[in-house]
Amino acid sequence: MKRIMVGELSSHINEKIKIQGWIHRIRKLKAITFVILRDRTGLIQCVIDNKLMDISSIKLESVVSILGEVKESNNALNPFEVLVENFEILNEAIEELPIEINKEELEISLDTMLNNRILSLRHKQINSIFKIQNLIVQGFREFLINEGFTEIFTPKIVAEGAEGGTEIFEMKYFENKAYLTQSPQFYKQMMVGAGYERVFEVAHVYRAEQHNTNRHLNEYISMDFEMGFIESEEDIMNIEESLLKHILGKVEKEGQKYLELLNITIPKIENTIPRMKFSEVLEILRREYNKVDIDGDLDPEGEKLICKYAKEKLGCEFIFLTHYPRKKRPMYTMPCGESETHSFDLLFRGIEITTGGQRIHEYDMLINNIKYKGLNPEKYHNYTSVFRYGMPVHGGLAIGLERITMQLLKLENIREASLITRDRTRLTP
Amino acid sequence: MKRIMVGELSSHINEKIKIQGWIHRIRKLKAITFVILRDRTGLIQCVIDNKLMDISSIKLESVVSILGEVKESNNALNPFEVLVENFEILNEAIEELPIEINKEELEISLDTMLNNRILSLRHKQINSIFKIQNLIVQGFREFLINEGFTEIFTPKIVAEGAEGGTEIFEMKYFENKAYLTQSPQFYKQMMVGAGYERVFEVAHVYRAEQHNTNRHLNEYISMDFEMGFIESEEDIMNIEESLLKHILGKVEKEGQKYLELLNITIPKIENTIPRMKFSEVLEILRREYNKVDIDGDLDPEGEKLICKYAKEKLGCEFIFLTHYPRKKRPMYTMPCGESETHSFDLLFRGIEITTGGQRIHEYDMLINNIKYKGLNPEKYHNYTSVFRYGMPVHGGLAIGLERITMQLLKLENIREASLITRDRTRLTP
Repeated sequence: MKRIMVGELSSHINEKIKIQGWIHRIRKLKAITFVILRDRTGLIQCVIDNKLMDISSIKLESVVSILGEVKESNNALNPFEVLVENFEILNEAIEELPIEINKEELEISLDTMLNNRILSLRHKQINSIFKIQNLIVQGFREFLINEGFTEIFTPKIVAEGAEGGTEIFEMKYFENKAYLTQSPQFYKQMMVGAGYERVFEVAHVYRAEQHNTNRHLNEYISMDFEMGFIESEEDIMNIEESLLKHILGKVEKEGQKYLELLNITIPKIENTIPRMKFSEVLEILRREYNKVDIDGDLDPEGEKLICKYAKEKLGCEFIFLTHYPRKKRPMYTMPCGESETHSFDLLFRGIEITTGGQRIHEYDMLINNIKYKGLNPEKYHNYTSVFRYGMPVHGGLAIGLERITMQLLKLENIREASLITRDRTRLTP
Repeated sequence: MKRIMVGELSSHINEKIKIQGWIHRIRKLKAITFVILRDRTGLIQCVIDNKLMDISSIKLESVVSILGEVKESNNALNPFEVLVENFEILNEAIEELPIEINKEELEISLDTMLNNRILSLRHKQINSIFKIQNLIVQGFREFLINEGFTEIFTPKIVAEGAEGGTEIFEMKYFENKAYLTQSPQFYKQMMVGAGYERVFEVAHVYRAEQHNTNRHLNEYISMDFEMGFIESEEDIMNIEESLLKHILGKVEKEGQKYLELLNITIPKIENTIPRMKFSEVLEILRREYNKVDIDGDLDPEGEKLICKYAKEKLGCEFIFLTHYPRKKRPMYTMPCGESETHSFDLLFRGIEITTGGQRIHEYDMLINNIKYKGLNPEKYHNYTSVFRYGMPVHGGLAIGLERITMQLLKLENIREASLITRDRTRLTP
C-alpha cells in the first residue's frame, strides 16, 4: 500500500490509508489511546482501541507506520482523524528527547537549541525558518536565470584572498599554502570577462573573524551576482530592487503556511528603495541623533539609526547607502573622484544585508588601485591578467543568505538562520 | 539607448540599434571594414565605412559599443548585418590573445586551455559545456523540489570525515583541528531525521587524493539527495531513473543550441536502467572478457567492460551495479546478509557517476557497523546520537556534477567539465 502524506488526507475521507511518521504525542484514556502522528506535511490525530494494542510504553519520536481509515471528526488539528487498524513500529526511539519539541513554543536557550540542533529542527517553527530560506534562494536563482544569468561554481580553495585583511582561514594544499575563499569576487568578475556577461553563485564563504556576535558566522552562504555592460552601480541597485520584489513575492505566495507559523508579515517595497550618499548619512546621524563617532563605515548603532530614519521619514524598511569612502572599500571597487567610490550597501531593519558596486574594468587603474590600498599587484596576477584582454564595464553584489533570512523573519541571532552553525567556538554538530 | 542582444537583432530589421560586446574578428577591405562583434548570445557582422573611421589597429577582444542600423544581408553568420554609424571603445584590450579563440576549433592542449582558462571560455564550444552543466544542475533541483525535497546548506568545515580513509584536507579552525568535508553524508542523513524527510544539496566536496587522473578532481561539485520512509535502495534507484530522464529531457530541450555546437546527441533511457548484482558482474567479466583480477570494486577497465556489455547486450548506456561487498562500502551502508550491502553504483559510458544505497537507521546496528569497519564510534558521536531519537528507514545518493557533464558531452578529461580546476598541482587561476 502506498504511503499517503498527512497533508493529503482530507481527500481520502472514509478510505483505508497508510501513513508514516514520528509519534508526536500519546494520550491514553480508559478505552482508547490518542496518538498524534507527524510527517513532513503536518499532524494527524490517530485513535487506537486499547483492546487492539497498548502503545503507551513506546517512546515519543519513534518512527511508525499506521494502517487505518480516515473518518470525519472534531479535533483540534483537523476535521478528520484516523481509526487505527494496524500499528507498526519502524524504528523505536531508544531515549527520551532532551527537549520538548511537541510544545507550541520551544522555550529553550539558543545554546540548548544549537546543541540539540537536529532535534530542535523537528519543531514546526524552527523547521519553517529553513523552508522560508529555501524560497529565498530559489527566488534568487529563478529571477536571475530569467534575466539571462549563468550559474557558476567557483573554487573555495584559493591561492589568494579577495577581500584583504587577516580574517582568512589557511590550509595546506599538498605542498602549497592555500586559503578558504572569503568571497567569489575575483572569479565572478573573471566569468563576466569569460563571456558569460551575467553570472551568479550561491555558495559557502569563509571568514576567520575572531569576534562572536549575533550577526556573524565563520562559514555562511553568499548569494552573489555580477554583470557586465552596465552604466554604473545604479544598474546593480535597480536589479536588486526587482530581485528583492521577486523574492519577497515568492516567499509571501509560496511560504504562507510557514509565515503563519512564525507570525511574520512580509514587508512591501513600494516603487523604489531610497538611495542616500554615505556623506549625507553622516550628516543625518549628526543632525538627527547627535551621532558623530563614525570613521569610514557605520557601526551597528549607526546602521540601526539610519534604518530607523528610513522607516520613519522615508517610509521604507530598506535603504541603499551609496558612495562609500574609498579607504574603506576593497581594491576592486571603482573610485568616484578622489575619496568616494561607486559602491553601495543595502541595509534592512538595522543590518547590512548586501554589499555591492561597480568594479574597476581598466587594467592600469586596477593595478594602481591595488597599490593605493597598500597591496602588491604581483600577488594578484591571476586575477588582474584577465583585465588585459577586454573586460566589460561591470558590477555586482553579494547578499548574505542567513542575514536576509534573519532580518525577514525577525530572528534575534543569525545562528537561528544557519542550519548548522560554524562560529568562533562551534565546530559541531 | 537600450542595448539589444545580438540574438534579438532579427526582430529589429531596418531599425537603429545599440549593440555591445567583444571584437571577435576584423577584416579591412579597400572601402569598408568588417567587424564581427560577439556578445553572450552570438555573433554579428558589422560594416564600417573606412571614411567614417579606421579601426584596424584596435586589438581583438576589445570591448565596444556600436550604434547602427540592422539591414538584410547575405553573410555566413546571419541573414542580416549592422551598418555602423557610431563605434565606441569601452575598454581596449592591451595585449594580443595568447590563444586564437575566434577559430572554429580551439586546437590547443589541455594544459594551455587550463592555463588560459578565462580566455578559453570565450570560445563558443568551451563556453557551451557550462551552459549544459547549468541545465543539468537546474534539472536536478527542479525535479527534486517538485517531489517535495527541501534544499539544504550544510557545513564544509567539519570535525570528522564521513567517508573514512586518509584522503581528507586538514585545516586549523582557531584552536581546533578541522577538515574539509568529503561529502555531506552525515548532514543529509541528519536532516532526514530532523523532519525534512527528503533533502538535497548541490555543493563543493573535497578529496585530498594524491593521484592525478583524467577523472578525479580534488574539489568538485556533488549533487546529493537523501530520503526517508523508503522500502529499500530500489526506491532510490527508481527516483534516480526518473530524475535522469527529467535532466536529459531538459538538456535536450533547452540546450539544443549548445548541443549542436558540441555535436552531441542526448542518450535515451527506454523504460528502466538495467540492474545487476556485483557478484553477477564479476561472473560476466570472467566469462565474457576473461577478466578475473577484481577485488571488491571495479577498476577502470572493469567499469568500461561492463558498460560495453550493458550497451551491446542490454541496449542501455547506463547500468546500475547493486549489492556491493560490505568490506568496500562505508560504515553507514545498510548490510545485506553477511557480505553484501543494500548499495549501488550507476555507471554511464564506462565511468561511475553515482554512488548510493540504503543507510543503516538503527542505532545499535550503526554502532556495530562502525566497529566492524575498524573505526571508533566515540569519534562519530554527533552523527550517531541522532539515531537514538527515531530515524526513518532511509537512503540516498550522490551524483558527481563534473562526471556526468564529462560523460554526457563525451569529454576526454574531467578538467574540461570543471569551470576552474583544482587538481593535484593546480591551485590557480
